[in-house]
Amino acid sequence: MSIVVVGSVAFDSIETPSGRVDHALGGAATHFALAASYFTQVRVIGVVGEDFTAANEDVLKKRGVDTSGIEHVAGKSFHWTGSYTRTLNEADTLATELNVFETFTPKIPASYRDSEFLFLANIDPKLQARVRREMSKVKMVCGDTMNYWIKDHSAALAEVLVDLDVLLINDGEAKMLAEDANLVRAAQKILEMGVKSLIVKHGEYGATVFFSGRSFPGAKPETCATPFRAPALPLAEVVDPTGAGDSFAGGFFGYLASQNGALTPANFRKAMFYGGVMGSFAVEKFGTERTQKLTRGDIDARFEQFRALSHLD
Amino acid sequence: MSIVVVGSVAFDSIETPSGRVDHALGGAATHFALAASYFTQVRVIGVVGEDFTAANEDVLKKRGVDTSGIEHVAGKSFHWTGSYTRTLNEADTLATELNVFETFTPKIPASYRDSEFLFLANIDPKLQARVRREMSKVKMVCGDTMNYWIKDHSAALAEVLVDLDVLLINDGEAKMLAEDANLVRAAQKILEMGVKSLIVKHGEYGATVFFSGRSFPGAKPETCATPFRAPALPLAEVVDPTGAGDSFAGGFFGYLASQNGALTPANFRKAMFYGGVMGSFAVEKFGTERTQKLTRGDIDARFEQFRALSHLD
Repeated sequence: MSIVVVGSVAFDSIETPSGRVDHALGGAATHFALAASYFTQVRVIGVVGEDFTAANEDVLKKRGVDTSGIEHVAGKSFHWTGSYTRTLNEADTLATELNVFETFTPKIPASYRDSEFLFLANIDPKLQARVRREMSKVKMVCGDTMNYWIKDHSAALAEVLVDLDVLLINDGEAKMLAEDANLVRAAQKILEMGVKSLIVKHGEYGATVFFSGRSFPGAKPETCATPFRAPALPLAEVVDPTGAGDSFAGGFFGYLASQNGALTPANFRKAMFYGGVMGSFAVEKFGTERTQKLTRGDIDARFEQFRALSHLD
Repeated sequence: MSIVVVGSVAFDSIETPSGRVDHALGGAATHFALAASYFTQVRVIGVVGEDFTAANEDVLKKRGVDTSGIEHVAGKSFHWTGSYTRTLNEADTLATELNVFETFTPKIPASYRDSEFLFLANIDPKLQARVRREMSKVKMVCGDTMNYWIKDHSAALAEVLVDLDVLLINDGEAKMLAEDANLVRAAQKILEMGVKSLIVKHGEYGATVFFSGRSFPGAKPETCATPFRAPALPLAEVVDPTGAGDSFAGGFFGYLASQNGALTPANFRKAMFYGGVMGSFAVEKFGTERTQKLTRGDIDARFEQFRALSHLD
């Protein structure tokens, strides 16, 4: 089983109350791929510039990630500069240098075409829709988006949503997308847009999944029942929140893919927990530092912490 | 087993996006007592004016609540006017008419002195401390407070905290009390103030308990282990958030008291769920309307919803 992820591979310069880092390896596809790599084979589609070194690519390769879909072009890689010194809940973007990412045209290697799972990280919904069409045989598609696309590209986004098995967004994005301040009503409206299930991320409070009545391929009807909420781990220090959401998506989708596509309610719930687990690791160090060097033992020990945190027995 | 609660018995005039209500029965002690009454005997200490009718008192009596500690004096009852039209997460106070509550001097009826449990609702910490001293033989004391006391009456509050088994406050209050923006560090600091356990309420995201190393009377050491988080129920309509926190406290403490003071980790966790359950009912209608007319069957059915919402199996 393998997951294709399309999204940004970038450098991030980040300041937080814990310190700062310059040109750290980042980007949604990078965070997603590293987190998912502990569960299943991951294949990346992205674009980088000449500043992206073999050492950068080795970070992914060492985790067994297939990087043959990362296109190298003339110019500089996407570079994001942000600060969390005002609040850790939201980044203040200081600079967005799109560079080679501005003209990104995803190209799917022939060797990727047999993948069963597809993750559409936060990019232009027109590109998401195109990749989705070209990967028409996948069993399951998850996607992310952000305020920018919701606000100014809603028509293009609607074409992506109609075909998604799982949309992963945060509270504010869900309420903006549905134009409703109540989360349950917002979720209902988003499910009516065609999304089969909606995971709403609550940051330090965890994440909630809402299911539509439309079952997934291979899933039994009871998949589409009552909502389920996974906690987040209370942490005494959040060093760098960047990539937490993409790491959540990687843990979630990676675990689901590792179950041979058995989209049972029990597996979906466990996948939500693994999402929280990978998100909790991601924020403990700057950039991808923590997620690069985990063991499956670390991950399963933290999974048990999540269980103890939330279970009566 | 019985709980004595000392706090406000009041009238609330409330506006929310769902409508408005004028002079509805409210107050922290009222919400707490009604919620806890489904689990154990509750005895109220408060003060009301001439506008507090026999019909008002019957709301409590019908639920078996002992109202002999509600003092009737000349003047008007405490009247709070608030609006949630800006956001349901926080009330905008439009008017606080303390009236007879301004000179409230709690008097503990002799018949209350054998109670094993004490809840100090949100009142002047000097009064909380006095009641605590006079009820020195209780097995367990829970308390609430608010920004006003944290900010301007910290010395008096400190004397209450040093002796509390459980403090129930919300995120903002915890961070203000500890002067730390990180919840885990804030919790550690509050536990160092003497509080044996701290329940931080997250509104629609549930509540988390943090334990100190100091065990409760009768509790085994493992009570004081890792944190535990109870979810809140995602609701499509929150009609009136007033009293949700006091209803949480009532469900939590009422359930614990009903277990004959067996403060086991398992009972503490279940009590947190019952807190969430009672909070979720409270917000479904204005004032105390919903909490007046529940059955234990309603409550236990919702408890199972909370379990399904949060449990892997």
